[in-house]
Amino acid sequence: MSHIYDRVALIGMGLIASSMFWAMKRGDLAGHVTGFARSEETRETARRIGLCDTVCDTLADAVRDADLIVLAVPVGVMGQIAAEIAPYLKPGATLTDVGSVKGRVIADVSPHVPDGVHFVPGHPLAGTEYSGPESGFPSLFDNRWCLIVPPEGADPQAVDTLSTFWRGLGSDVELMEPDHHDLVLSVTSHCPHLIAYTMVGVADDLGRVTNTEVIKYSAGGFRDFTRIAASDPTMWRDVFLSNKDATLEILGRFTEELFALQRAIRQGDGEFLHDYFTRTRAIRRSIIEAGQDTAAPNFGRSG
Amino acid sequence: MSHIYDRVALIGMGLIASSMFWAMKRGDLAGHVTGFARSEETRETARRIGLCDTVCDTLADAVRDADLIVLAVPVGVMGQIAAEIAPYLKPGATLTDVGSVKGRVIADVSPHVPDGVHFVPGHPLAGTEYSGPESGFPSLFDNRWCLIVPPEGADPQAVDTLSTFWRGLGSDVELMEPDHHDLVLSVTSHCPHLIAYTMVGVADDLGRVTNTEVIKYSAGGFRDFTRIAASDPTMWRDVFLSNKDATLEILGRFTEELFALQRAIRQGDGEFLHDYFTRTRAIRRSIIEAGQDTAAPNFGRSG
Repeated sequence: MSHIYDRVALIGMGLIASSMFWAMKRGDLAGHVTGFARSEETRETARRIGLCDTVCDTLADAVRDADLIVLAVPVGVMGQIAAEIAPYLKPGATLTDVGSVKGRVIADVSPHVPDGVHFVPGHPLAGTEYSGPESGFPSLFDNRWCLIVPPEGADPQAVDTLSTFWRGLGSDVELMEPDHHDLVLSVTSHCPHLIAYTMVGVADDLGRVTNTEVIKYSAGGFRDFTRIAASDPTMWRDVFLSNKDATLEILGRFTEELFALQRAIRQGDGEFLHDYFTRTRAIRRSIIEAGQDTAAPNFGRSG
Repeated sequence: MSHIYDRVALIGMGLIASSMFWAMKRGDLAGHVTGFARSEETRETARRIGLCDTVCDTLADAVRDADLIVLAVPVGVMGQIAAEIAPYLKPGATLTDVGSVKGRVIADVSPHVPDGVHFVPGHPLAGTEYSGPESGFPSLFDNRWCLIVPPEGADPQAVDTLSTFWRGLGSDVELMEPDHHDLVLSVTSHCPHLIAYTMVGVADDLGRVTNTEVIKYSAGGFRDFTRIAASDPTMWRDVFLSNKDATLEILGRFTEELFALQRAIRQGDGEFLHDYFTRTRAIRRSIIEAGQDTAAPNFGRSG
């Protein structure tokens, strides 16, 4: 594939940005890629491992002349970064982000976008429980969705080019409205994360079961929660604070359902439980059929 | 390894029993293995795939002359099966089970155990989200814990031999008290399962987010919940009803913690959230160090 953007600037060099870099190189999608990270340690690591064609020490140097600027930082600091880079953005450039929440990012970033710069938010639904500049790999986005969430009045050409870029990175692309995005993601990602964090916290707090026991005997379900609960704390703090309304709504629904199951257990209502568990099993089958996971028995993976 | 038991009877031929059979063959642990399942279809499948040396049509035929009898059926029917097989058990034989709950199984089975037969309950902490006679494989127990939970007054020699047998199947063996077992497992397995079932149920119920969307965009956390929530409904119904007290206690703790996190989100208390998520991340590291999971970034697995 030939270059989709001549110059790309990656602001933040964590898991997503570093994977974007390797995937851009794999697909030859960009002529030159700059990278910036606030932390000097991250910049040094990036230079050592060859992450980005040029690692810049200032935001201004990173974004100057860039045709695509990618905000790949925690959702809570996107607005501040947008304000800092605004004076250096080239007319005609596209500004995008990879945040897990869209409504808040649009509200925070839009006021700072200069005339002639196209702001087209995005969200690749991909990741691992690892973070940092060394955690990226080129196939992270392969066959994963990337949701493009244009605000009202976004330039159609800029949206098209960004979509083509994400397809080049390996993703399937779909457009979505900001509010709907935040609700869907609350169900499929944000609330599952919060619940996993909670359950791992309960285990840690419980005096009568030692941490050693919890860790030793984690094979039967808890292990998968800890994997979720190992994700980056700053990123997730910002996600919950930024998607507060949808998170609280879905948590409310979750608590209702949990109480219904809890009552069935207390009352010994086996039929209710069996029906419930049969229904949830069918959903799993649909996910495998939709190609979003493999059917390989993951619980049985060897230690 | 030479035969640890001459004749072994597997009652139930699902994931655990079929994996035990293949692991017994791999290690040459038993002279002859019989199998029984209530369902004719399961017995036919077992015969077709060579599961068990002899597939028996009655409980009596399966357990007669057996040196080890393994109850590998849902926890709710163990007592009834014990009553049915009791008249046919050989003096000196060991009766064990593989149920996920121990207090209730001991209460249900013990009254039926004839004099001279040793009842030594067990619980291999291994499994996948699949079930049935074709889901077993010989390495399921490798490097997984098997908890042996002898009731008061259990014969030490019978406990030793069963422990050796489980080591031969690939497991690491540890002894545990019944009540403590049920509390630990409630934290590491039963409650995580219930919570995963609940979250998947919420997604299924939510009118404003379609099932198609939930399924398409499940990569970011929800996917792991659906894997857990795809486990056998009958087995899990019985687990919750049989381990009611510990389950309700841990769910109470879980709800408390969840409400604390929910309040932090509502109040915008980022420090509380960040601290919480940092703590849970450390637990994940301990699990990897304890060899109970690999460090490979599982989220990044390709679809």
